[in-house]
Amino acid sequence: MTTTPVTVLGLGPMGQALAGAFLRAGHPVTVWNRTPAKAEPLVEQGARLAASVADAVAASPLTVICVIDYDAVETIVTHAADALAGRTLVNLTADTPARARAMAEWAAANGIDYLDGAIMTPTVTIGGPDAVLLYSGPAEVYERHRATLAALGGSATHLGADPGRAAAHDVALLDLFWTSMAGLMHAFALAREEGISAADLAPFAKGIGDLIPALLDELAAEVDRGEYPGDTSTIESAAAGMDHIIHTATGHGLDTTVLIAARAIAQRAIADGHAKDGFTRLTETMKGAPATR
Amino acid sequence: MTTTPVTVLGLGPMGQALAGAFLRAGHPVTVWNRTPAKAEPLVEQGARLAASVADAVAASPLTVICVIDYDAVETIVTHAADALAGRTLVNLTADTPARARAMAEWAAANGIDYLDGAIMTPTVTIGGPDAVLLYSGPAEVYERHRATLAALGGSATHLGADPGRAAAHDVALLDLFWTSMAGLMHAFALAREEGISAADLAPFAKGIGDLIPALLDELAAEVDRGEYPGDTSTIESAAAGMDHIIHTATGHGLDTTVLIAARAIAQRAIADGHAKDGFTRLTETMKGAPATR
Repeated sequence: MTTTPVTVLGLGPMGQALAGAFLRAGHPVTVWNRTPAKAEPLVEQGARLAASVADAVAASPLTVICVIDYDAVETIVTHAADALAGRTLVNLTADTPARARAMAEWAAANGIDYLDGAIMTPTVTIGGPDAVLLYSGPAEVYERHRATLAALGGSATHLGADPGRAAAHDVALLDLFWTSMAGLMHAFALAREEGISAADLAPFAKGIGDLIPALLDELAAEVDRGEYPGDTSTIESAAAGMDHIIHTATGHGLDTTVLIAARAIAQRAIADGHAKDGFTRLTETMKGAPATR
Repeated sequence: MTTTPVTVLGLGPMGQALAGAFLRAGHPVTVWNRTPAKAEPLVEQGARLAASVADAVAASPLTVICVIDYDAVETIVTHAADALAGRTLVNLTADTPARARAMAEWAAANGIDYLDGAIMTPTVTIGGPDAVLLYSGPAEVYERHRATLAALGGSATHLGADPGRAAAHDVALLDLFWTSMAGLMHAFALAREEGISAADLAPFAKGIGDLIPALLDELAAEVDRGEYPGDTSTIESAAAGMDHIIHTATGHGLDTTVLIAARAIAQRAIADGHAKDGFTRLTETMKGAPATR
């Protein structure tokens, strides 16, 4: 079995996980990091530490970069554009779709094959069956490196040629993740004020966590149809439920700004005559942006 | 097998589901509703329609009520306090823990055995294996009616003597549910602006939905210990992720107030010196309530 050499730029926790997965799959791995000390565990596992970005990317047909944001990506790769020309750059750094598209344009202008990707699962999953990675960019570039990228584990999906598409999925999914996490923290805080430990709440919270995936296909179908029937649950009843939560949380002196913002959107839909519609109607109501900053 | 007679007050969608489940389990069921026409399908299945609340509750040792809120409960049962004396009232109406405790005091003052409950799953689950019901109030009252209440299906949990405890679980869990649902609607809205259909996003959104239950025990343990290590993910990186989402959503003209409120809490924690702590630290930050209304 021939194994393609791979270069990994950036050795934060995720970069280290990526380089480790390539090493374990038998790929010759070259690494570079702004602070070289972070490369030590990987060098012990057989990686080669390059002295410069240009040196690092010259070692492999495929370079993977995962750093804090696209500002950092730009700082790193603009000094190595010549070395990257004719090679492939896979950018797994999280940022906005617009930045992903701009980076793809820069790569094209410099003769660099470019894929933009998003890692949807935590560091510990990388290289294992639970990893979920999304890619977008030219299909032939993805196909050329598909077998190598498979070393990162789990399921990988190519979402199409638009280089911003992986990042667009990423922001939408992180939107769900962080909003839900804020809700979970608030639920824990509220339970604590009521004398309920987080461990006591956890099994029931898992039940709620299971409820949303179970409802998801039905909700998605309503959104895509643009029809929002309130036959199982209405915006009006959701707003009434939020009232109870906000009232109880406020009584305990908790910050309730997140749910107040959600209720305000529901109230706007009700004021627009949609009280008896389903909650999915709010995807429309959110299009009006009365208070974005 | 002896089956206990049961009375059900309130025949909205949930009340009808409750009465139907008791009927299917072979209990003699007496029903009452403000608008009697709603009782017709149940009467066809063998329920008896009572002419008054007092008449209804006199028919059974156990009365279950599930209506829109506790104002409605009070309006209904205060006219039947004499008939309820010496019997049991199980209130499955959703409201705040404080209202549940006040209702328990009223019941005690009137010689009525009282359980307060919360239904954690949708109407369609009632009577089947997926139903989740929580109860609180005197253990001996719960034990006396446990076999009858089992007709409602699924798993039932008695949470202790404090009559507010079921409602406290209910508000905390609905807090998680509605905040997550607001996040899901926003994710759908953001994806749509990026040309991604809800159906295309749905499989990945399920993955996110599965992630939180998987993390839950670990997060709960941090909250209960009051220790918030940021070894896998920090508040700072969460805030940076929220920046990307807010920036992208604002660019599409979407309402981003919910996530802006969540980010403000994270920013407050960062300003307090907790940038490198884990997200669970926000359960503490939420105790300060700078903007509740």
